[in-house]
Amino acid sequence: MSRFITLSHGNGGKHMRLLIEEIFAKHLSNDLLDTNCDAALLPELNKRLMMTVDSFTVQPLFFPGGDIGSLCIHGTVNDLAVSGAIAKFISLSAIIEEGLAFDMLDAIVKNMAQAANACGVSIVCGDTKVVPRGQGSEVYFTTTGIGYQSSLVNYSASLVKPGDKILVSGTVGDHGAAIMLSREQFGLSGNIQSDNASVLPVCQSVYGLEGIRFMRDPTRGGIASVMHEISQSTGHGIQLNELDVPVLDEVRTICDMLGYEPYYMANEGCVVAIVDAAIAEDVLHLWRNEHNARYASIVGEVTDRHNQVVIKTAIGGERMLPELVDEPLPRIC
Amino acid sequence: MSRFITLSHGNGGKHMRLLIEEIFAKHLSNDLLDTNCDAALLPELNKRLMMTVDSFTVQPLFFPGGDIGSLCIHGTVNDLAVSGAIAKFISLSAIIEEGLAFDMLDAIVKNMAQAANACGVSIVCGDTKVVPRGQGSEVYFTTTGIGYQSSLVNYSASLVKPGDKILVSGTVGDHGAAIMLSREQFGLSGNIQSDNASVLPVCQSVYGLEGIRFMRDPTRGGIASVMHEISQSTGHGIQLNELDVPVLDEVRTICDMLGYEPYYMANEGCVVAIVDAAIAEDVLHLWRNEHNARYASIVGEVTDRHNQVVIKTAIGGERMLPELVDEPLPRIC
Repeated sequence: MSRFITLSHGNGGKHMRLLIEEIFAKHLSNDLLDTNCDAALLPELNKRLMMTVDSFTVQPLFFPGGDIGSLCIHGTVNDLAVSGAIAKFISLSAIIEEGLAFDMLDAIVKNMAQAANACGVSIVCGDTKVVPRGQGSEVYFTTTGIGYQSSLVNYSASLVKPGDKILVSGTVGDHGAAIMLSREQFGLSGNIQSDNASVLPVCQSVYGLEGIRFMRDPTRGGIASVMHEISQSTGHGIQLNELDVPVLDEVRTICDMLGYEPYYMANEGCVVAIVDAAIAEDVLHLWRNEHNARYASIVGEVTDRHNQVVIKTAIGGERMLPELVDEPLPRIC
Repeated sequence: MSRFITLSHGNGGKHMRLLIEEIFAKHLSNDLLDTNCDAALLPELNKRLMMTVDSFTVQPLFFPGGDIGSLCIHGTVNDLAVSGAIAKFISLSAIIEEGLAFDMLDAIVKNMAQAANACGVSIVCGDTKVVPRGQGSEVYFTTTGIGYQSSLVNYSASLVKPGDKILVSGTVGDHGAAIMLSREQFGLSGNIQSDNASVLPVCQSVYGLEGIRFMRDPTRGGIASVMHEISQSTGHGIQLNELDVPVLDEVRTICDMLGYEPYYMANEGCVVAIVDAAIAEDVLHLWRNEHNARYASIVGEVTDRHNQVVIKTAIGGERMLPELVDEPLPRIC
């Protein structure tokens, strides 16, 4: 018989205890997670710690290439990885809408546990809230990650200089396109998979290299938004080369049909790096040896054209790539 | 002119950047918060670190005695304080419903900043998501706190023994009663204020004492639920004395009218401690010198009656205090 989350699963009493035991503690159990304590004691690391947070509101909860459970873990691991840090501890909060099926939550938390194990992170503390029907949407998760920073890295947008090269580690827009396709209202179908994955191996492969200025995972807003962030914080210009940006044919087709550009579409397993031109080929070589980065490409460079973000088109022209303003694609991650 | 949150404030582009600059960065600015990075580098502490997480879904957002902004900070500081740790760094995530007024969000984040300053904590990283109208409710926040544990403490439910005394630091049920009253549908009004406050000073006043077994802040489910947690994890019994549990007259009246017991109602600025009987009077004395704990009381003791949680009534009888099952009071915190 199917069971569903009720408001009493959030009241601090018996049902909440059983929910935590039967789903969260069952899948996420580890030495540090103590569901009877308000706070978890972390082992001593003697390292430089970094902290990051993300909420996950993706809809649908399961999509080609992943689900919200694995996405929570990868998103958190990735934010630390591009900052030069290896995720170790995660806090997890769930805001559950009344009426969610136990089986669905169980499947999600199971996938979350698998992703956490694969990434070598422990979920050390958690919280659950239940909100009345119509005041949420199935489930929202928030994860905060703590990791230790590699002593080899020193990344900052302020290091970026004109002449630096821009690389992406994989095809762009895959996650956004997969989510759009999996939403029934578009009436389309296809084989596009989200790139949902840890990028830690891709990042770690270049931690030891001198000349990496900055890395970022292009989630909401895509690589175009990362380019604007860099341009705004440094004052420099950016030039991408359309012919060099790897985009899957299926992704380009769906974007053309729906009127989106792939450069604004989310990835969830891709890295953008800005590096000294002298090491660009080395990074490319290292990345292409990584399973997740076989389509890595040098896609453009930093210019001295103040705050101009442009793309050189396939036919040799050039056009502005404006900052994303109004196209909202809600609940993409 | 009033401005409202739209879906484009969550798309990773220009509007999201402005939302973060105009509200979050404006109020929460500090040396560690860098809104251009995916992760914050924490200063080296060389201390035992503790981590805690809570989501806040309270409705209404502003209530007598506080608001969701200050509640986020106090809730996180308190979870660490009762664990023997002093909060230092907080991550903040906001899941905002389309249509929320900018002014409302601004007022909340301002109160959050004031509470954080007063508590000596820094918000070091954040995330914002916008969900479509009807898929959230105004705003939900999630905060994860990192603190360092005092070397003086060693608290655990496993240290609790029959004969230990149970103390509360203040009147019970104030927050729950204030929230209930402030919900219009009850058609009642009164002067009850939430006890929403940091309990760090109250906890710190006894960190140096030997014989503190366990502390907890009784939020959802109230002191009755903390008693059940202790009883379940130790196998011991609990006896509370009704005449000794401090309850404000107004809180008792509203509970009687609505059919609730104050022992199941949330506090947000109160501590329950279980201590060696030999130091109970010392704790009481120390607490009563604290502004927040002038109504501190010894309210009962741990017994050897296996898993029985009972309350001695005002007329000398005894009754079970059952584990909270079905009374859901959603979105109390």
